Amino acid sequence: MMIVMKETATDQEIAAVIEKIQGAGALAHPIKGARLTVIGAIGDVEQDVNIEGLGLEGQPGVDRVMPILKPYKLASAQIRHGERTVLQIDGRKIGGEHFALIAGPCTVESREQVLSTAETVRDAGAAMFRGGAYKPRTSPYAFQGLGQEGLRLLAEAKERTGLPVVTELMDVRDLDVVLEVADVIQIGARNMANFPLLAEIGRSGRPALLKRGLSSTLDELLMAAEYILKEGNPNVILCERGIRTFETDHRRVTLDVMAVPILKELSHLPVIVDPSHAAGRRDLVGPLSLAAAAAGADGIIVEVHPNPDEAVCDGPQALLADDFADYVVAVERAAALAGKAFSTA
Amino acid sequence: MMIVMKETATDQEIAAVIEKIQGAGALAHPIKGARLTVIGAIGDVEQDVNIEGLGLEGQPGVDRVMPILKPYKLASAQIRHGERTVLQIDGRKIGGEHFALIAGPCTVESREQVLSTAETVRDAGAAMFRGGAYKPRTSPYAFQGLGQEGLRLLAEAKERTGLPVVTELMDVRDLDVVLEVADVIQIGARNMANFPLLAEIGRSGRPALLKRGLSSTLDELLMAAEYILKEGNPNVILCERGIRTFETDHRRVTLDVMAVPILKELSHLPVIVDPSHAAGRRDLVGPLSLAAAAAGADGIIVEVHPNPDEAVCDGPQALLADDFADYVVAVERAAALAGKAFSTA
Amino acid sequence: MMIVMKETATDQEIAAVIEKIQGAGALAHPIKGARLTVIGAIGDVEQDVNIEGLGLEGQPGVDRVMPILKPYKLASAQIRHGERTVLQIDGRKIGGEHFALIAGPCTVESREQVLSTAETVRDAGAAMFRGGAYKPRTSPYAFQGLGQEGLRLLAEAKERTGLPVVTELMDVRDLDVVLEVADVIQIGARNMANFPLLAEIGRSGRPALLKRGLSSTLDELLMAAEYILKEGNPNVILCERGIRTFETDHRRVTLDVMAVPILKELSHLPVIVDPSHAAGRRDLVGPLSLAAAAAGADGIIVEVHPNPDEAVCDGPQALLADDFADYVVAVERAAALAGKAFSTA
Amino acid sequence: MMIVMKETATDQEIAAVIEKIQGAGALAHPIKGARLTVIGAIGDVEQDVNIEGLGLEGQPGVDRVMPILKPYKLASAQIRHGERTVLQIDGRKIGGEHFALIAGPCTVESREQVLSTAETVRDAGAAMFRGGAYKPRTSPYAFQGLGQEGLRLLAEAKERTGLPVVTELMDVRDLDVVLEVADVIQIGARNMANFPLLAEIGRSGRPALLKRGLSSTLDELLMAAEYILKEGNPNVILCERGIRTFETDHRRVTLDVMAVPILKELSHLPVIVDPSHAAGRRDLVGPLSLAAAAAGADGIIVEVHPNPDEAVCDGPQALLADDFADYVVAVERAAALAGKAFSTA
Repeated sequence: MMIVMKETATDQEIAAVIEKIQGAGALAHPIKGARLTVIGAIGDVEQDVNIEGLGLEGQPGVDRVMPILKPYKLASAQIRHGERTVLQIDGRKIGGEHFALIAGPCTVESREQVLSTAETVRDAGAAMFRGGAYKPRTSPYAFQGLGQEGLRLLAEAKERTGLPVVTELMDVRDLDVVLEVADVIQIGARNMANFPLLAEIGRSGRPALLKRGLSSTLDELLMAAEYILKEGNPNVILCERGIRTFETDHRRVTLDVMAVPILKELSHLPVIVDPSHAAGRRDLVGPLSLAAAAAGADGIIVEVHPNPDEAVCDGPQALLADDFADYVVAVERAAALAGKAFSTA
Repeated sequence: MMIVMKETATDQEIAAVIEKIQGAGALAHPIKGARLTVIGAIGDVEQDVNIEGLGLEGQPGVDRVMPILKPYKLASAQIRHGERTVLQIDGRKIGGEHFALIAGPCTVESREQVLSTAETVRDAGAAMFRGGAYKPRTSPYAFQGLGQEGLRLLAEAKERTGLPVVTELMDVRDLDVVLEVADVIQIGARNMANFPLLAEIGRSGRPALLKRGLSSTLDELLMAAEYILKEGNPNVILCERGIRTFETDHRRVTLDVMAVPILKELSHLPVIVDPSHAAGRRDLVGPLSLAAAAAGADGIIVEVHPNPDEAVCDGPQALLADDFADYVVAVERAAALAGKAFSTA
Repeated sequence: MMIVMKETATDQEIAAVIEKIQGAGALAHPIKGARLTVIGAIGDVEQDVNIEGLGLEGQPGVDRVMPILKPYKLASAQIRHGERTVLQIDGRKIGGEHFALIAGPCTVESREQVLSTAETVRDAGAAMFRGGAYKPRTSPYAFQGLGQEGLRLLAEAKERTGLPVVTELMDVRDLDVVLEVADVIQIGARNMANFPLLAEIGRSGRPALLKRGLSSTLDELLMAAEYILKEGNPNVILCERGIRTFETDHRRVTLDVMAVPILKELSHLPVIVDPSHAAGRRDLVGPLSLAAAAAGADGIIVEVHPNPDEAVCDGPQALLADDFADYVVAVERAAALAGKAFSTA
Repeated sequence: MMIVMKETATDQEIAAVIEKIQGAGALAHPIKGARLTVIGAIGDVEQDVNIEGLGLEGQPGVDRVMPILKPYKLASAQIRHGERTVLQIDGRKIGGEHFALIAGPCTVESREQVLSTAETVRDAGAAMFRGGAYKPRTSPYAFQGLGQEGLRLLAEAKERTGLPVVTELMDVRDLDVVLEVADVIQIGARNMANFPLLAEIGRSGRPALLKRGLSSTLDELLMAAEYILKEGNPNVILCERGIRTFETDHRRVTLDVMAVPILKELSHLPVIVDPSHAAGRRDLVGPLSLAAAAAGADGIIVEVHPNPDEAVCDGPQALLADDFADYVVAVERAAALAGKAFSTA
């Protein structure tokens, strides 16, 4: 960590900061410039955390404290020396050279809808099936999902198609029933910083698909992943799904496609994109999917519905089941541009 | 809700939208302009929700769907016909003409720290005492709070000073132990959209201090409040604590002081401000507190520490206990500018 | 335009709004709902502008005024009935099925640098050559460009390679000298809302490359284009180059790749992307270029330098001249995914 | 400047960076930590600029380059050793303990409107009169101001009331005619980074009121001020007027009240607030004005109109002339809270 002193800092104030750093068992390297002094504080990895607790920011004469080391360890690219993590979900690989397409309806609505969509996406070449039984909704008056009945239908779809199931957990008390069905547990954007939930999923060992919060920095996303990894669960997939910006006229959020290459530089974990929630409109899902794949994403999670006009939730952003096979072909070619091959069983 | 048709929409497409609205039992009012057609869809309050589920946004010929009615009901100003809610917390009033100052340390660290701070803030005129036993931390390696031992110390501080206690709940499984101590349950910014947590607090009936998420719109904040109100708990305090913007050079977040008068227009609930987390730096807490009070806030929740340099958490933003009495005098004068009097037992 | 009345609006207030609309020569369509009244105000195209001047937003009983018609006309997709504009710049086409790669150094530094880069980009298949003679710099102490000497070198590069020249104008008083060299006049992000500059470029008739401001909405970008189009100059290229968001840790701006398909829906004008300024780092330029092309951009403007380490300006984001041919091949394949062919003389 | 090397950087890469720094005539201080190396590069003030031109960001092994020194000099608080600048505009002081209220209509519309408003604001205690003759408008079809006729009316208002005139310049070619009337030249938010305009106003020596761009950081605002100061014009007033954020439901921009204390820490220049453009709605102007004054602003620039319903531009945000005297009394009390007295002739 570097401590930048104010231009007006006195020698005593500089000495007090140095003393505090040394008192924490770290080394202080003052650099006196023409206008101000900067102090480098170097400890070993564990000591860095202690330095942060020193409260140097409030100290007299201190202008600002700039962290140097990234705050995540297990999620960082360095820990695997640049090697990329490839997860295996029931035989489907994701990460490295493997691109996984995850598709299905936003919400489980009925047996017919779930089974027909699962067959559509399997036939077109998807690697996994997604569907929500528990739905976080902005309004308490909106449909909140079928709950355990939805989970049962997902289990049936899995049995029928052989596709691994991705489904969301939003209440830590539902963990056990979700574990009975989910091959991958999805953590929604609103729960990215729900730390007790992250820790429990970490303890479960089940693969986790962690969506970035709408205003979360990439470092915060990686810290959320760290909460899962720290419990001994190495199976985390990062997911970009759009961020809040000033641009709200023609969409709800802005897809941050730059997050894909940057996350892959910062972390060894697979990085996927959710073009459906980013777009909020069906006509944008295609261009955003190609953009994500061409930018090097390790997968896409996309919404498909046999009859979106009658979808209970998020119909306007669902791809039509009838168009899905063409969509898959286009995405496969875009992924190939980035050196990736589609993952199948 | 208004449905704006595209300029290229055909008569059939317009007719199909009208039919869909009527099929949902609502009235459709088409208005044909020189360049395009707009269709007003009017139902009663419950039907509005149904219209939203029609998926008109994906319909051919539809440009966009603009909601007219606000999505929250119990939180809206209209439901109380403009009358403001005044909560009573163990005799302290908040809302209307009553300004409540809530003060205390970020985190409960030790018996000595908690008791001395509680006495300081009571002597200076605070209405309630705040302190965290469970701390949501970005890093899994950071101090996570004293937990139940912290709650015990808060109970002791309450017994000693008579001040009602405000403390955070972040895991729904801790509700019962928190209820034993908390006069007001704080919901942190990260948990604003943790809907199961909100619903449980709603069911508990205990007053809730609901912090705005870092990228939550005011409508989303009010929808979160609606989750609590809907369970029959009318005791919700809204709290602005800074939002994420592009400005990150000299601070972590940007205080949205405009949120105060706008929330008071939209809702009957009390609105307070957290200048400590908004500022992140002690020297900004004073100006932001005066700004919040002058803008009409119903209260302030602020961090105070007897020795911030040694605080385990957020020391740089804590006011010095020695300066607190002067701070209170200044805030009281700013609140008076907005027609409010300090609330005491 | 729709006028949403407050739930508390009186009949008199509603009548007053209707009267005001009718007084402006427009038609008022009141729709009375269960909770509130909405008034549709419909005029012909010219009257819409007058209605906006009525100040209805401040009127008693009015909750909000929602515009229906898009404020731009000449830039809108409707005016060309969905047909896309294809510009011809000295024989190079851009728009429709034609993808134009514009490449060159950020800044003109020397004769050797300009000529060698121009040859590199021509040989690799670029359609146009870019280079800055006038540079808007955040700091008044930074290098501000070679000015007229820079323009002379660009002219020489054009003569040598046959590539049309794209260069920036930032002071309206330099228009004449820039017109002597520029085949396309670039308007930088900071000048997107410099309306006198836009109007003069409009009057000049010279093709304009209009960069989106860092916090400009797409509607504002199209209104800026309208300033040029209104003067009788139909030759406008829109350019997305990254926007300001809360995410500032690992980059300066966030590329808004969604802007590409949305702008193409809203407008008939060609839409290109500047991955260099969006990225700010060389390693991100490749992924962002592929994403932009796959999302359907009509072109890319990218920075290339023979020796970026010694570049006067923005070296870290410049592609290496030696890598440029491989880059072009990859971009060409991504553009093909979106149905576009590279444009050449 | 600090250069943070990657964890994977080799000794050769570290040596190459050190060599480059020394080659620029600066001193390099490497600090080897447990996980990575940081290199402090220290020159004298002028050399810092040179180091920035080294392109170290693109260098192999370099993770990031962190500037230490603030990029502005003449605008910085340090240059005046903490003393605050107090400007005198025709006898009215602004800055330090002096609070200046600047009021008037958004746009000059008619002789009657200008003269009556000028008298109203003078009688109520305003220090200066504002009014726009040249108006930057998002739409090329909107009213663009009365131009020179507007300037003539402002001159008459000044003669009649004795109030100094604040008016906007948006085209560098209008500088001479504006100089004939303006006591203070306003630079609008859209032109904050119009560097040729800033430089010309700098050369003119006339006091400048510089509005912050909608997505400008505070450092960028101070760099824009530096463009004026560098030309030998020390008379710059900084103005916060709201920034772009994700919150667009109930307003156009978000007032950044934190900018007031932060700018006053960073710079010696006076800092004022424009609550009218920040609010966009009359009912918010009062609370925001009190907040700004209580937070320590050195002044306010506010819009007033005798009959806002008929205003050509921005009527909904104008205070009613009839309410203005009460408004002034409230603002004066809020300014007093921050230790400031109203400035008069």
